[in-house]
Amino acid sequence: MDREALAQAAGKVIWREDRVGKWLGMQLEELRPGYARLSMAVTEHMANGQDYCHGGMIFTLADSSFGFACNSHNQRALAAACSIEYLAPARIGDRLTAECREQARAGRAGVYDARVTNQEGELIALFRGKSATVRGHWVEDGRGS
Amino acid sequence: MDREALAQAAGKVIWREDRVGKWLGMQLEELRPGYARLSMAVTEHMANGQDYCHGGMIFTLADSSFGFACNSHNQRALAAACSIEYLAPARIGDRLTAECREQARAGRAGVYDARVTNQEGELIALFRGKSATVRGHWVEDGRGS
Amino acid sequence: MDREALAQAAGKVIWREDRVGKWLGMQLEELRPGYARLSMAVTEHMANGQDYCHGGMIFTLADSSFGFACNSHNQRALAAACSIEYLAPARIGDRLTAECREQARAGRAGVYDARVTNQEGELIALFRGKSATVRGHWVEDGRGS
Amino acid sequence: MDREALAQAAGKVIWREDRVGKWLGMQLEELRPGYARLSMAVTEHMANGQDYCHGGMIFTLADSSFGFACNSHNQRALAAACSIEYLAPARIGDRLTAECREQARAGRAGVYDARVTNQEGELIALFRGKSATVRGHWVEDGRGS
Repeated sequence: MDREALAQAAGKVIWREDRVGKWLGMQLEELRPGYARLSMAVTEHMANGQDYCHGGMIFTLADSSFGFACNSHNQRALAAACSIEYLAPARIGDRLTAECREQARAGRAGVYDARVTNQEGELIALFRGKSATVRGHWVEDGRGS
Repeated sequence: MDREALAQAAGKVIWREDRVGKWLGMQLEELRPGYARLSMAVTEHMANGQDYCHGGMIFTLADSSFGFACNSHNQRALAAACSIEYLAPARIGDRLTAECREQARAGRAGVYDARVTNQEGELIALFRGKSATVRGHWVEDGRGS
Repeated sequence: MDREALAQAAGKVIWREDRVGKWLGMQLEELRPGYARLSMAVTEHMANGQDYCHGGMIFTLADSSFGFACNSHNQRALAAACSIEYLAPARIGDRLTAECREQARAGRAGVYDARVTNQEGELIALFRGKSATVRGHWVEDGRGS
Repeated sequence: MDREALAQAAGKVIWREDRVGKWLGMQLEELRPGYARLSMAVTEHMANGQDYCHGGMIFTLADSSFGFACNSHNQRALAAACSIEYLAPARIGDRLTAECREQARAGRAGVYDARVTNQEGELIALFRGKSATVRGHWVEDGRGS
């Protein structure tokens, strides 16, 4: 399998196991080596009394895009640390998109940046995730590794 | 109202409006000026195929404790930025507790640290939140401000 | 003055006042609105017994590029918070370059990302800075604001 | 050697090799397992035109206290990532103290928090450092490890 196919195959396994993504209504829109894009509609459940989306829900979307991106090389990886900057509020009815790109890999560590935008392209949040690879792969890559 | 009573009264309003907290089954266990403690059981919904809790759910619990703590002075405050370090996994059936303490306030900014532990007192995550106060109060404090 | 000229003029004032940059031997290589690039040689003073550069010196270079970038609109801005990920060591004799780009501005807040590389283009560190604008300008912009 | 003596012995070696600490005039005031306190006077060199201390110098002091604390178990450790929140400015003539405490260790990773205060006890900055242990010790501990 080439790198693109491996990313797709790994992503398929991760998505199958990802109960939170389905529970929150996320959609996996694109997945390539070192890159993932997911979207999610802000529902009433996710908002407070002022109809603003809870920061934890915005984080969870960004974190999920990071999870797909940092596992897209078919090497299992875990989140070691994450940070998020909130730039504008999200509201009920908004459709949020998180787009995550690999910034660096060094040894077992990786750094990934995600941008969360709404349906108008407005920047809602900036997210940075640090991953650490662990033993194991998501799929057999047919090269015996 | 004294500071303790104000924290309680503000927390009551915030909790009433907090749909995410109820949706995820959180319990507000203690609230004082600059301090909040919440707990949450890790359900199947929150976990992936290996039965590990999604980082976004752990974050959301910590973020909620931060939300209560940074609003406990009855001055409305928003999360400006947050960071989290994951130290040990949480699993289905674990009961997580997030305990958040004010570290500093300077002008409109505040810094709050939360520790997330499981039912055995094991440290699951360390969280740091930066808040910014905005106009408005949660309750009338009877002093006309 | 147009935006480019303002950035140059503001940068000139900031550089004149920047004792740390001169003390550490930094060079301001490029400055545009929302962008700055500085370089610095790692000297013996900056290293420990294994001849590795102190993380604080790498941070200071990145932080300086952030300072120029977030003040490049001629509106005075301060660093509110910064974070850095160390990816590879820097050694005595290395020439480090920090390149900082604006990621977002929202109200008084800004987010800036810097990459620190060595003379071979190897990534040494990733830096993120959050700025807050304050009253005042670096130069009169001739438009009376 | 007991843990206290090991911390002292390791610190002695680290300090001997620490050119930056001496260059910036730092003083190592206290060192125990998981704890370090250093101080530094803000000199003219460290300040900009408004006589405010450069954020990089405040960071470097905090980072140094973190370096001593995370190496205090005599197991070599490196900084993997750091973050800092600036709460109040430091000025020429101020004497800054950075006090760093271990928050958690899990596997090879550690989390350390430092507070930087001035001579009046005012909080200048909050710092969080993440360390990763590497092979090697600072001193022979007489137990053959």
